[in-house]
Amino acid sequence: MALDSVSTDNNSLQSICYRRGSLQLLDQRKLPLETIYLEIRDSADGWSAIREMVVRGAPAIAMAAALSLAVEVFNLNAFSGTAADAASFLGNKLEYLVSSRPTAVNLSDAAAKLKEIISKAAATASEANSVFQAYIEAAEIMLKDDVATNKAIGSYGASFLQNQLKNSKFSVLTHCNTGSLATAGYGTALGVIRALHSEGVLERAYCSETRPFNQGSRLTAFELVHDRIPATLIADSAAAALMKDGRVSAVIVGADRVAANGDTANKIGTYSLALCAKFHNILFYVAAPLTSIDLTLSSGQEIVIEERSAKELLCSRGGLGEQVAASGISVWNPAFDVTPANLITGIITEKGVVTKAGADDAFDIKDFIQKTA
Amino acid sequence: MALDSVSTDNNSLQSICYRRGSLQLLDQRKLPLETIYLEIRDSADGWSAIREMVVRGAPAIAMAAALSLAVEVFNLNAFSGTAADAASFLGNKLEYLVSSRPTAVNLSDAAAKLKEIISKAAATASEANSVFQAYIEAAEIMLKDDVATNKAIGSYGASFLQNQLKNSKFSVLTHCNTGSLATAGYGTALGVIRALHSEGVLERAYCSETRPFNQGSRLTAFELVHDRIPATLIADSAAAALMKDGRVSAVIVGADRVAANGDTANKIGTYSLALCAKFHNILFYVAAPLTSIDLTLSSGQEIVIEERSAKELLCSRGGLGEQVAASGISVWNPAFDVTPANLITGIITEKGVVTKAGADDAFDIKDFIQKTA
Repeated sequence: MALDSVSTDNNSLQSICYRRGSLQLLDQRKLPLETIYLEIRDSADGWSAIREMVVRGAPAIAMAAALSLAVEVFNLNAFSGTAADAASFLGNKLEYLVSSRPTAVNLSDAAAKLKEIISKAAATASEANSVFQAYIEAAEIMLKDDVATNKAIGSYGASFLQNQLKNSKFSVLTHCNTGSLATAGYGTALGVIRALHSEGVLERAYCSETRPFNQGSRLTAFELVHDRIPATLIADSAAAALMKDGRVSAVIVGADRVAANGDTANKIGTYSLALCAKFHNILFYVAAPLTSIDLTLSSGQEIVIEERSAKELLCSRGGLGEQVAASGISVWNPAFDVTPANLITGIITEKGVVTKAGADDAFDIKDFIQKTA
Repeated sequence: MALDSVSTDNNSLQSICYRRGSLQLLDQRKLPLETIYLEIRDSADGWSAIREMVVRGAPAIAMAAALSLAVEVFNLNAFSGTAADAASFLGNKLEYLVSSRPTAVNLSDAAAKLKEIISKAAATASEANSVFQAYIEAAEIMLKDDVATNKAIGSYGASFLQNQLKNSKFSVLTHCNTGSLATAGYGTALGVIRALHSEGVLERAYCSETRPFNQGSRLTAFELVHDRIPATLIADSAAAALMKDGRVSAVIVGADRVAANGDTANKIGTYSLALCAKFHNILFYVAAPLTSIDLTLSSGQEIVIEERSAKELLCSRGGLGEQVAASGISVWNPAFDVTPANLITGIITEKGVVTKAGADDAFDIKDFIQKTA
């Protein structure tokens, strides 16, 4: 099953442009002011692109790493080793790629999966080239699978929302960036919005600025404008007034990690949106692939929240720009918060929407996974 | 009752430095990076300072205007007219000052009050100088009264909170800027925080960034650092997580306008904080002088919300700085929101704290005003 090209679709923004033997990454550091794609020729280019934040978003980082090595081996002029040498060559390169962002879990997970495939291939292959070919195909399947997962999330989410909301058209609010710029393509929560739009039922997407790093105003707004989806940017703090005005029917956010009971860690501000949605009887959905669900965590209380640099609040452009805040002020800058399951209406996955019996119940995600396996 | 100098106190930040015959205004356009006071010699200087946003905040604007004219007439070398001529001279200057910010209600209210005083003085005075003297004294009393009002709000609020919260020390969260930079001095909600600090019961003040114009990170943080009050800045969207962590015992905000039932229009984001406070059983107070209460409004539904420029979200520094957001995105940027009375624990005024019988009741502010008159 060799793929010559993997395209998410013709309309939605692509941050990872891959054809066998060639890879370009959208330089996210330049967004939203400039749209520049960088040519990635090998794993060294991939390593630098990840380290220097050309690409961000956990699934997108993993794909960029895997594909940079796929491009490198496709274009290798000569390799004078055995199948085992090829496996060892690839293994070393993958370890090197993981070192670009050692804390990125998706990246090391992807590297581990690819290493397993290489080992198996090396065990049966008669020459190096077969191992390289197996690696390229595995990386391409990974890309295709991630996009397919997101498209399934989008499709399930869009159908589910249309069943819940009887209006012919409705508006939704999202937070942070969960789109093509954070994934292999299409997106999770933003994938649901893309699906609602393509099905003609989306009145308008509202995106929050998402302080302090402005993923909403810089990235999500960029994707929505690119895809010509009717969209409006609001300050994070205006979400409650937006709901009170009756302007949105649902909130859809992504997830960094979901515990077995449905408690969800996501970008700071998600919890506040969930509380406001609950008060206004507005549907609140988490959209995430099953790989984001960590069944080893019984609840959100076990999730440790990373605190980030004060500079993100003190200076513009998430800490890179000019000073904005008063000198000498202390800062509390948690990267994430945990939204308890009782504030979440459903969890949209690539296998369907996880719901719960009563509004105040927890989710039984383990049961859902078993039933849909 | 002539005042040679009106000082708020020796510790808290002063944005209006007045002594008879001299006025300096803290240039708020330069904050928080530079602390520069501009010399205001006459009403023309005052007009420019208001128009060019050297001074902002409704009560502060009114005081800057009144005092700039007081300085002008104190330093007049010769005035060859009658008492009636002096009254006419002052009346024209006041009208000119009002034209600096025609929509500022406090400014036109103050001008109207001062005109009345001038008319009365002119009716009995034998010479121009008596009218000028009466004007100077009236403007000085206005300054003194505004600071006294804020100090009373601070004192009532601090006592009330200590009664409500039995802890020896506690932390509070505030929104936007309601301090010396927005008033004649000391501040309203920030005045309560100053009073709690001076009474030794304030553990820590948290201030929200207050997007999109960053009054929290630029101005409130500046005041808190200046006054050496233990203080921490948070993103607006982190307030819910702060409450969930049990880090704050109360929220105290100011008000742009309070309706007769207690519904309160205040800076965008106030409503979201009130919802989150309610959910976490955290006290939520509005601190405002009785002049902010508009008994002609039966409820908040009658308050029209101003929408402000998209640029405030699209560019840094509230629209003045570099582009941050994606080009082409629409923006919804309401300046205020309305917090319903049922989310407000009490309204702290210079005459005491307005409370209500049950948590879900409305306030009877008219009754409170009559009883404390």
